[in-house]
Amino acid sequence: MSDSYSYLGPSGTFTEAALAQVPEAAGKPWRSVNNVGEALDDVVSGRSTAAMIAIENSIEGGVTATLDALANIPGLRIVGEYLVKVQFVLVARPGTRLQDVRVVNAHPVAYAQTRRWLDAHLPTHGHIPSTSNVAAALSLFDSELADAAVAPPQIVSQGEFEVLAEGISDNANAVTRFVLVSTSTALPAATGADKTSIIAELPADRAGALLELLEQFSTRGVNLSLLQSRPIGDALGRYRFVIDADGHVTDERVADALLGVRRFSPGVIFLGSYPRADRVPVEYVARYDNEVFIEARDWLRGIVSGEPEL
Amino acid sequence: MSDSYSYLGPSGTFTEAALAQVPEAAGKPWRSVNNVGEALDDVVSGRSTAAMIAIENSIEGGVTATLDALANIPGLRIVGEYLVKVQFVLVARPGTRLQDVRVVNAHPVAYAQTRRWLDAHLPTHGHIPSTSNVAAALSLFDSELADAAVAPPQIVSQGEFEVLAEGISDNANAVTRFVLVSTSTALPAATGADKTSIIAELPADRAGALLELLEQFSTRGVNLSLLQSRPIGDALGRYRFVIDADGHVTDERVADALLGVRRFSPGVIFLGSYPRADRVPVEYVARYDNEVFIEARDWLRGIVSGEPEL
Amino acid sequence: MSDSYSYLGPSGTFTEAALAQVPEAAGKPWRSVNNVGEALDDVVSGRSTAAMIAIENSIEGGVTATLDALANIPGLRIVGEYLVKVQFVLVARPGTRLQDVRVVNAHPVAYAQTRRWLDAHLPTHGHIPSTSNVAAALSLFDSELADAAVAPPQIVSQGEFEVLAEGISDNANAVTRFVLVSTSTALPAATGADKTSIIAELPADRAGALLELLEQFSTRGVNLSLLQSRPIGDALGRYRFVIDADGHVTDERVADALLGVRRFSPGVIFLGSYPRADRVPVEYVARYDNEVFIEARDWLRGIVSGEPEL
Amino acid sequence: MSDSYSYLGPSGTFTEAALAQVPEAAGKPWRSVNNVGEALDDVVSGRSTAAMIAIENSIEGGVTATLDALANIPGLRIVGEYLVKVQFVLVARPGTRLQDVRVVNAHPVAYAQTRRWLDAHLPTHGHIPSTSNVAAALSLFDSELADAAVAPPQIVSQGEFEVLAEGISDNANAVTRFVLVSTSTALPAATGADKTSIIAELPADRAGALLELLEQFSTRGVNLSLLQSRPIGDALGRYRFVIDADGHVTDERVADALLGVRRFSPGVIFLGSYPRADRVPVEYVARYDNEVFIEARDWLRGIVSGEPEL
Repeated sequence: MSDSYSYLGPSGTFTEAALAQVPEAAGKPWRSVNNVGEALDDVVSGRSTAAMIAIENSIEGGVTATLDALANIPGLRIVGEYLVKVQFVLVARPGTRLQDVRVVNAHPVAYAQTRRWLDAHLPTHGHIPSTSNVAAALSLFDSELADAAVAPPQIVSQGEFEVLAEGISDNANAVTRFVLVSTSTALPAATGADKTSIIAELPADRAGALLELLEQFSTRGVNLSLLQSRPIGDALGRYRFVIDADGHVTDERVADALLGVRRFSPGVIFLGSYPRADRVPVEYVARYDNEVFIEARDWLRGIVSGEPEL
Repeated sequence: MSDSYSYLGPSGTFTEAALAQVPEAAGKPWRSVNNVGEALDDVVSGRSTAAMIAIENSIEGGVTATLDALANIPGLRIVGEYLVKVQFVLVARPGTRLQDVRVVNAHPVAYAQTRRWLDAHLPTHGHIPSTSNVAAALSLFDSELADAAVAPPQIVSQGEFEVLAEGISDNANAVTRFVLVSTSTALPAATGADKTSIIAELPADRAGALLELLEQFSTRGVNLSLLQSRPIGDALGRYRFVIDADGHVTDERVADALLGVRRFSPGVIFLGSYPRADRVPVEYVARYDNEVFIEARDWLRGIVSGEPEL
Repeated sequence: MSDSYSYLGPSGTFTEAALAQVPEAAGKPWRSVNNVGEALDDVVSGRSTAAMIAIENSIEGGVTATLDALANIPGLRIVGEYLVKVQFVLVARPGTRLQDVRVVNAHPVAYAQTRRWLDAHLPTHGHIPSTSNVAAALSLFDSELADAAVAPPQIVSQGEFEVLAEGISDNANAVTRFVLVSTSTALPAATGADKTSIIAELPADRAGALLELLEQFSTRGVNLSLLQSRPIGDALGRYRFVIDADGHVTDERVADALLGVRRFSPGVIFLGSYPRADRVPVEYVARYDNEVFIEARDWLRGIVSGEPEL
Repeated sequence: MSDSYSYLGPSGTFTEAALAQVPEAAGKPWRSVNNVGEALDDVVSGRSTAAMIAIENSIEGGVTATLDALANIPGLRIVGEYLVKVQFVLVARPGTRLQDVRVVNAHPVAYAQTRRWLDAHLPTHGHIPSTSNVAAALSLFDSELADAAVAPPQIVSQGEFEVLAEGISDNANAVTRFVLVSTSTALPAATGADKTSIIAELPADRAGALLELLEQFSTRGVNLSLLQSRPIGDALGRYRFVIDADGHVTDERVADALLGVRRFSPGVIFLGSYPRADRVPVEYVARYDNEVFIEARDWLRGIVSGEPEL
């Protein structure tokens, strides 16, 4: 298997910034790809050892292409999580002035996150969608269809750009969450500050199914940081849910919750247990400690084996 | 240890009728005792191999003396369940006529179950409580304080009684449930028509604690046939609950529910898994089958051990 | 209607002590009766304006005769709650010494609460049950069947008793809760420290029915201080529940919970809203304030009436 | 106010097909707009009486731009729901053969839904995103960047296209759900086959908040046909939920559920009650009938007003 890492390129994207946070990737070859499908294909085919992909944005929510790819491509595992602050500048060809801008090239997600600024400062602008934030800017030199582009601040290292405006994000705290995906089934060790990701299909045959799915976690004191519905795709109203649960699958309460989910769901995919990007230890109440689970099992084992109870 | 069986006597009681249903007790010595405390004392001390005690009556509910004794005496196990139809006659000394009856001797539970008949036919009667249904009748020959007694129909074999009225129970379908109690920690084998009895204390520190206790069963598809609150005794409003759950502790769904109860409750007593008196197989939905639990554990074990998922 | 008050007599009982706490009863005639049925009969027939009856004991739990009478006699309302500390002395005929005592006369509940002391100090004693704590003591002068009696401390004002031992309760903090019952449907005003009592039958047709009943309260932030199961009486396993909820029926959250119970239960009896004996204000989280309920109703009314939302 | 209707144009889009299902729109002016923001702007400003917008796709899930616009623009109401089957053809300039196609122009959603077909038949194709399905096809005559376009079958009425392939959707049953949005606060009358749409923010201060939100519906027997999480946008992990509930706000069970949601949620938006596109009557169990709610209210009113209970 190759030791390279795939990411949504070209150089200068937020995804590349996320990959730069991975110590193991330093000094290894990085493969720039065009979309999440290509990135995961690299992983599955063995062309790359892992791929960095965006999974959630604080403004736009779950990245549906990523969530659906994780649901449909078997054998993938999330092995790490990374956060990148999302900030944008408006760039143009040298000599362009803001008042000259008629058409803006921007990746749809970037466009959504700067729309309020653009509407205020360029009320009559048109929009051309691009496949990446960097491609939007670079296209200015290939074609004159657009007069300006929304791009990450680091774009200035990629060419002779005129920066027309900085800090044009509608939300100054916007952040995108990335995950590093591989095919390795070896679990990263528990750190006390972990996340466990799964995708679970709801049984079709009963109302309140989502309620029952959520109870698998709440009755074991496991908090969820992500719950995103995605259509299964065969009919309106049929959903699967992408779930991030606090804790590691080797934590007893998480393991017990996953057992409950597995028994309940007609289709569940384990995506991995891995350290949280923020390294904040998971908090939970004492009665969901590992020791409590182990003591209960010992007690039950004694009963079933016919030992006198202590 | 003795091979005798203890029961609430004297001969002729419903408890004796329950004991007569136990094949293992046939041909063994039977010890007639005065109350449930004595009966359980015989078991704990080894004077008897088991004791038959009343635990629930369809009119009066749980027998509190029994429930509290099971909660407070360690080391007891329920090994069997038996039902006896409860019917009463009104008996008197020979020559007595119904219109002569002024005072009725009756065990308080029997009195409660015939009260409507007595109020209708003997509106001005007085009541003397007795310690057993048989003792109530036999006392007619010891003292003239009472003119008649409420007793089981089989009392006529115990003496020269005048039967003043038959079928005087307010509810023709009244039934009492008895359990056979021993100190053996060997579990009766699962039959598919089993009950599991526990006593669980509620944690004091949070509202909705009973709700959470019940959810341990409902989320595993385990139905409850008895839920009786009993005061712990140290303060008003502090309770433990006596619970009969459908199924055997070796049924996966029951075992998993008990694990949940053990983790949740500050004090839980396992009273036993044993065949139901009515021998009706436990019904449950397919998703709580043993196979579902086993498959889920295998799945989780594969994940934790790092095997590729199938 | 008479202005008298009925209570379980004779003079000297704990019930009388509870009635002595009722300001309205001062200076009115008090009727001593023999049991809870008679007391409630006085109320229903109009012979008394109200009756004081024991409803719960910290050792023995709910008083089943009271709970069943409240369930079966229509038109009764609880209008007040009172607590009496339960303490016992062992009394005898003058000249009796503790070592002479062979048989003890005691009301069954009193006997249960002093059993440990009696077993320790009179290991071979016999027990004769009595219909009241006071009658147990007074019987010592009518018959020599018993040598001593368990009685409340105030018994000494009723005759020439030899006090063989004081403070013989197994639990020094034992307390009995009494309720004052009338037929008045006028609600006592809300005080902020109220209780609401109901009796609710469970629907037979579905599992998890008790869970659903309890959710009616928990989802409105209403805490329960009493939950006592009582058999309906027609078959084993069919129950109704006696419930004490914190708050007054004019509190929005309590009213909404009662609406939920009414919709859910095939038979629900409203027993009353009345001030708590301990006068401790009910605590609840702010989101269950009356104002929150009123605001939500106003919001919905605006929507249904077609007003533009604010 | 104008009597025109806005829709995502140009002529030939699925949105236009949805608008064609609205009897009231027949014979009125239709305004073709470029995106959902413009469409809703027309409604808010009064330039149009209503706008047709896509809200959910059976493959792609909720249309996030629509969901976020409904959450952020005050005063909007959904007044109708429409379904359009989503089918695609591959078109090109006259004379083009399938084997000549190198670059495909397609709206991103259309591209996602035909991706499998395209990958199978044109494995090396490139993709240019377009702002609408019709624009993708029309652009073939403006520029030679693309060789073919994914378009709805009705595109053939818009120009001289070569149809290279029909039925290229990856899922033959794909359907898109549209809603007609206006600012009218008058509720469409209940039909027995209605939907109620809301957007509810979760309280930040407690775990299990989503569980509690869902219980507001399940405890009133109200089924949900859509539950879509959307980030509030101020921080990762903060969500609001777009919910479609079966039934009309004038149905008692729906009204009661909305009251519960209003009391629970720090921010709830009522989007409307309107007839379901499929006209299938809402099913619910009898105990959630309007009559049950009304009877319970009458019962409670009697209690609070002091009337004797019947």
